[in-house]
Amino acid sequence: MNKIVVVGAVAGGATVASQIRRLDQESEIVVFEKDRDMSFANCALPYYLGNVVDARDKVIEATPESFYDAKQINVKPYHEVISIDDMTNTVKVYDRVHDTTFEETYDTLILSPGCRANTLNLDNSIAFTLRNMEDTDAIETFIEKNQVKTALVIGTGYIGLEILDNLYERGIAPTLIHRSEHINKLMDQDMNQAIIDEMDQRNISYRFNEQVTKVNGNEVHFESGKVERYDLIIEGVGVKPNSEFIKSSNIHLDDKGYVPVNAQFQTNISNIYALGDIITSHYRHVDLPAHVPLAWGAHRGASIIAEQLAGNKDIHFKGFLGANIVKFFDYTFASVGISPQELSNFDYEMVESIQSTHAGYYPGNTKLHLRVYFDKSNRRIIRAAAVGKKGVDKRIDVLSMAMMNKLTIDELVEFEVAYAPPYSSPKDIINMIGYKARNK
Amino acid sequence: MNKIVVVGAVAGGATVASQIRRLDQESEIVVFEKDRDMSFANCALPYYLGNVVDARDKVIEATPESFYDAKQINVKPYHEVISIDDMTNTVKVYDRVHDTTFEETYDTLILSPGCRANTLNLDNSIAFTLRNMEDTDAIETFIEKNQVKTALVIGTGYIGLEILDNLYERGIAPTLIHRSEHINKLMDQDMNQAIIDEMDQRNISYRFNEQVTKVNGNEVHFESGKVERYDLIIEGVGVKPNSEFIKSSNIHLDDKGYVPVNAQFQTNISNIYALGDIITSHYRHVDLPAHVPLAWGAHRGASIIAEQLAGNKDIHFKGFLGANIVKFFDYTFASVGISPQELSNFDYEMVESIQSTHAGYYPGNTKLHLRVYFDKSNRRIIRAAAVGKKGVDKRIDVLSMAMMNKLTIDELVEFEVAYAPPYSSPKDIINMIGYKARNK
Repeated sequence: MNKIVVVGAVAGGATVASQIRRLDQESEIVVFEKDRDMSFANCALPYYLGNVVDARDKVIEATPESFYDAKQINVKPYHEVISIDDMTNTVKVYDRVHDTTFEETYDTLILSPGCRANTLNLDNSIAFTLRNMEDTDAIETFIEKNQVKTALVIGTGYIGLEILDNLYERGIAPTLIHRSEHINKLMDQDMNQAIIDEMDQRNISYRFNEQVTKVNGNEVHFESGKVERYDLIIEGVGVKPNSEFIKSSNIHLDDKGYVPVNAQFQTNISNIYALGDIITSHYRHVDLPAHVPLAWGAHRGASIIAEQLAGNKDIHFKGFLGANIVKFFDYTFASVGISPQELSNFDYEMVESIQSTHAGYYPGNTKLHLRVYFDKSNRRIIRAAAVGKKGVDKRIDVLSMAMMNKLTIDELVEFEVAYAPPYSSPKDIINMIGYKARNK
Repeated sequence: MNKIVVVGAVAGGATVASQIRRLDQESEIVVFEKDRDMSFANCALPYYLGNVVDARDKVIEATPESFYDAKQINVKPYHEVISIDDMTNTVKVYDRVHDTTFEETYDTLILSPGCRANTLNLDNSIAFTLRNMEDTDAIETFIEKNQVKTALVIGTGYIGLEILDNLYERGIAPTLIHRSEHINKLMDQDMNQAIIDEMDQRNISYRFNEQVTKVNGNEVHFESGKVERYDLIIEGVGVKPNSEFIKSSNIHLDDKGYVPVNAQFQTNISNIYALGDIITSHYRHVDLPAHVPLAWGAHRGASIIAEQLAGNKDIHFKGFLGANIVKFFDYTFASVGISPQELSNFDYEMVESIQSTHAGYYPGNTKLHLRVYFDKSNRRIIRAAAVGKKGVDKRIDVLSMAMMNKLTIDELVEFEVAYAPPYSSPKDIINMIGYKARNK
């Protein structure tokens, strides 16, 4: 009988424990979670704050009790793994409730500690970060108690954009600032104009190249010299890996503190695996490292680790494509492939089209902007990005499947779209990109 | 200088003429169209009758005058090609307006005569078929003049379903009959339940295993013995190829009257090409013939023929996947791959899932039913079908791209979906199909 210790009980940790149990009814599985909640849906948190997701039990998918009853997996909240001894196969665990420390041995160790939110350390009671359900509850309580009417959102990553959208829809007037003009950085910068337009249309104020210098009570001082009053500040200023405890071991970390894994999601220590936001891996379609801290990868890693432990050694990971998507009011922004910053590794060409998302004569039509980049040396697609009100997710998912198969830009003409007037055009925008590429 | 004669000026004919002109400014191009209109959007016609598409000029995309001005292509409406002499490279043309016949020579002949609607020959002034803009105008005029309030729709193909939907939305009470219980035949029969449910919900009456035996004025007699009154009858009872005139030549026809073409869209006569609904070709993903009379294929054929004539001999057709989609009230039905009837050619297995189209906690969620068939000998996907209110087109398009790349059912777990709560789940339904296939 194997003893499996998992560090972290959110998307990666809870899922890998479940997947292991599905294939292995015998092993003992213990999951240590340093915070209060397990198995909450991270991606739901902004929508929960926006009252778009109404019920708490829709966000917290399991409790230690329900999880044990269903799967005989021990989840221990408020238990922080503080060091690893990979020579003796032992972790040291700090019990935050009882303020005690103990050691636990393992045969297999699986790391899914995730990341934590960066903070500007504004040292003020109106500023919050949003990373887990405890944060969410704290913000919700604060909003209710203080009848929050205005909010300053700092940062234009997914959290910043989704929180802004949700606070506005809830009736709180948000203001957005970002330290540079480089917003929503997974998207081509000129494709972000709709972010500005959507805010302008709703009279939402925003300032780029702006930072907070000081907060006194509700008085917020900015680098620009402005002083404004806000009821609430949400900081969406990036994350850092929870990997300090790993430094006690022989597990390799990269220079940013992430854990490199191989195609089996193994670290450099053969009985220690890692998954979720803590890992770095590689792209599937090009020969570059990839760090894709998103839910799909956590679930895929969970499945592969479970198959590995069950002895199905041929099931391994072929790499990330980096598919990502965000809703901002009426618009969708999505991309797949290498990031705009990584394009400089290639001699590339870009083809784009702006056209109707479905037959022009069918009502409800809107413009879709799709851009596809290819490597001129082999004409393979390396990145695609799309923005529009409708049909963005479909085109990026189709292109994700295309890139999974290392498609060339020219082969896009061969894509057979399911066409009827409400859905597409006889030559879909994906086909048009292929046709346009003939001259490039 | 080449002289190119095209037969038919709708999707295939008008598009191939345009595509040729794009690559070749020199050749003389003449297009003979037996009916009144060119370049109308066939797929728009039901929506035009439903007043969903409001403007006539959105449906008729070009006139002979506008087409000539833009492209120097001669389109001759009311000119029917009645025979082909492929030894002398001559067609005989009947001018329907002047009731005269003349001969026209060609260097290259391109056939895009399409199909015509079958009719039950009810020999009654209230019965119509719907295949072109003339039919549409006749129905529209009839509806207005007779203040049509009730309609009998015969047949459950795309035309039948779309017309029913559109007449209902326009305020005309429709009744549907079909001669068997085998409705919407490109879809798995048990996935058509939503067609019934959508009609029940709107109190639309329907009867299967029912046929019309006689019509007297507005009195319609049925095989069941029922006699009912209707203001209008629309017959959507299939089509037949307009290939009678081809029988005068050495061009091969298959036993149903369609024209087999090779990967260059050539008939057995090397300077005679064909495209659109008149052709038969082959599937891309399996070794079976395919007849896919839909718009995507007509456009693809047009492009390939133009490239062939321009000397780009390496651009050829790799086959159909048969992607198709139809909206019926709030539901979408779509499939890709071989038809349900063709499954018997394989030792196949089926995997299906019914799950939320996006994150369960995000509002507006609906169930999506996806079914994927694979060939057990090589585990390649051979067919997929989906039904639901949302996200059907996306999944079928992704699977079309998968089948274009001859994906196995097992590889579906590797599809990297662009995930955020409004769009999908971290494990999309496509991934789930792949995971479920592990045990099959």
